[in-house]
Amino acid sequence: MAEGLVKSTDYLISENDKDIDEAKKKGLQNSLIDRLALTPERIEKIALGLRQVAALNDPVGEIVRMWTRPNGLRVGKMRIPLGVIGIIYESRPNVTADAAGLCIKSGNSVILRGGSETLRSNLAIGEILREALKESGLPEDSVQIVPVTERSAVLEMLKLDELIELIIPRGGEGLIRFVAENSSIPVLKHYKGVCHVFVDESAELSMAESICVNAKTQRPGVCNSMETMLVHRGIAEEFLPRAVKALVDKGVVIKGCGKTREIVPEVAEATENDWYEEYLDLIMNIRVVEDLKQAVEHIEQYGSMHTETIVTEGYASSQEFINSVNSSTVMVNASTRFSDGFELGLGAEIGISTTKLHAFGPMGVEELTTTKFIVFGEGQIRQ
Amino acid sequence: MAEGLVKSTDYLISENDKDIDEAKKKGLQNSLIDRLALTPERIEKIALGLRQVAALNDPVGEIVRMWTRPNGLRVGKMRIPLGVIGIIYESRPNVTADAAGLCIKSGNSVILRGGSETLRSNLAIGEILREALKESGLPEDSVQIVPVTERSAVLEMLKLDELIELIIPRGGEGLIRFVAENSSIPVLKHYKGVCHVFVDESAELSMAESICVNAKTQRPGVCNSMETMLVHRGIAEEFLPRAVKALVDKGVVIKGCGKTREIVPEVAEATENDWYEEYLDLIMNIRVVEDLKQAVEHIEQYGSMHTETIVTEGYASSQEFINSVNSSTVMVNASTRFSDGFELGLGAEIGISTTKLHAFGPMGVEELTTTKFIVFGEGQIRQ
Repeated sequence: MAEGLVKSTDYLISENDKDIDEAKKKGLQNSLIDRLALTPERIEKIALGLRQVAALNDPVGEIVRMWTRPNGLRVGKMRIPLGVIGIIYESRPNVTADAAGLCIKSGNSVILRGGSETLRSNLAIGEILREALKESGLPEDSVQIVPVTERSAVLEMLKLDELIELIIPRGGEGLIRFVAENSSIPVLKHYKGVCHVFVDESAELSMAESICVNAKTQRPGVCNSMETMLVHRGIAEEFLPRAVKALVDKGVVIKGCGKTREIVPEVAEATENDWYEEYLDLIMNIRVVEDLKQAVEHIEQYGSMHTETIVTEGYASSQEFINSVNSSTVMVNASTRFSDGFELGLGAEIGISTTKLHAFGPMGVEELTTTKFIVFGEGQIRQ
Repeated sequence: MAEGLVKSTDYLISENDKDIDEAKKKGLQNSLIDRLALTPERIEKIALGLRQVAALNDPVGEIVRMWTRPNGLRVGKMRIPLGVIGIIYESRPNVTADAAGLCIKSGNSVILRGGSETLRSNLAIGEILREALKESGLPEDSVQIVPVTERSAVLEMLKLDELIELIIPRGGEGLIRFVAENSSIPVLKHYKGVCHVFVDESAELSMAESICVNAKTQRPGVCNSMETMLVHRGIAEEFLPRAVKALVDKGVVIKGCGKTREIVPEVAEATENDWYEEYLDLIMNIRVVEDLKQAVEHIEQYGSMHTETIVTEGYASSQEFINSVNSSTVMVNASTRFSDGFELGLGAEIGISTTKLHAFGPMGVEELTTTKFIVFGEGQIRQ
């Protein structure tokens, strides 16, 4: 697949150009057009992604555990593919290759339905991936691109619960809600990333500052960036002035609670709605909390079960935070930006689930499998 | 909970009597009335079930794996409860206590909606379980019995996708389809148990006979009993006469394919529909197949992804069967009747999933949990 894409660079770019021409005619924003453009460098990067996925361990056939029963039966759980996976996504054509690679690696078939703005690019990528499957002796129909862009086609697809095992929508909250509401197939949902960093009373201040600046500013437009910093009142007077300065120096606009504004009056006032906000931008909230318990309560009320970090030097605090916060990723002394499949060591990522079934948090190839029980006997019958 | 139920035996039986009186007035079959009756012995058995669940390992907090990243981050996956689980079930009042015990053991809350015929019994059991929770310092509302029996109440419950994480229906196929079609909450589905035993060419005949007789007759009315026996043509002439005799001696009515009837003419003819049938009775099908491949194809076409067994002395056949059959439980040389949570070593069972998300096959307390990522750092930030 990787080789095929690189070899077909000219063809891919010529098909992509047609998408771009049409997008320009439709008056799409330049930033959006940039997102859907393919260049030789971007195609190389897509190919590299496929090569990395190819190099991962094969999850299928892995025996995740095995035990022996008192009657001598050996019982185990073996990973198997889910079957057919449907991916519904917006704009970026790289998703076509990324998602197909992850599904094929995990032994699944995939039906891809991308945005209308990149239909020609997606069909061209699909064509090349299918050819590569054929050359490798795999059924080419295990990758299929939906060739129509009407929303009714998506609705039709979402009703095929006898044929498709799982739907993964990738895109904005609107797309994900539309899919979740209309699907009779299980959906892996990722709604929002309202991530928190809690700076505990015992935090090492320079570490706390560096983690908060990184979590907010290293790439503010993504779901695992920090939206709200919670600061223990015992350390607020010392920490807030330096933290706010460091953040403002990086161009961050800050809103704060009353206590925050007593200490750093230049901060704007945060409204109730702000605490729920996924800014995806250089904007954030600060709240001073009484203690770890109040920090956890804040996260429960306003968070989105994505990723939360505590910065602390206290052993008991670290354990309490890990145990009592049930977001999909809970960290001690590390930037929220590490919450992604590649950084956590899953090898690659098909998405992040913020609901608890069938996976919770970043999903790699393993999360595209299920397990069956295998049993080895010697003629045992039940009494 | 177990103590409470035993202590309240008189109260439970008096409430149960009201259900039984009403069932008699409604003219319910005696066999159905027997299923819903509580006796001191049955209450003892329910209490024993709760004690067994209490003795299981606590799944919550288990770190299922942990690894270290090149940057020093330690990353793990920790089991956490799902949240609120909804159980929708028919008649038997023991499900009320069984399901509540498994949900509480796995750290979840549970909303129970049983059949109208046992409403008073269920409410009485619920009352005692809630009291026990309170005495143990747990929130009594973590077990709730829906006090109304209208179907509209179920429909209402199935729309609470912001509050309930998972729905588990227990009962006939009609109930399960109704729930699956109307739920916006993920549903663990168990449609049918059309289980197969494939007797390979190299099978040890007495073992094959004993496994098939056990799989069909040890308890024919349950989902993990055998419905169809597939026999390799190379062994059919030798095996079929003795197997059919052994089965008929146990009262089994047999339908067979053309080749089966050539060898044992007393067998009735199986129709195309028979191969899909879950008889739940002393009735079964026999088909002679060309080879293992055709057995696997038969299972794929007519099976329900529940449980299949191969009886073989051949190493290659055993491995091929284990690898190529993707039912939820695949066995070598053991009766299909072992396919249940207790027999496989899960300690207890909340049901069997025959679809692949979020669990596949028998489900114990672990399957009522999910995992979150936990990350221990030393101040790492992302470059």
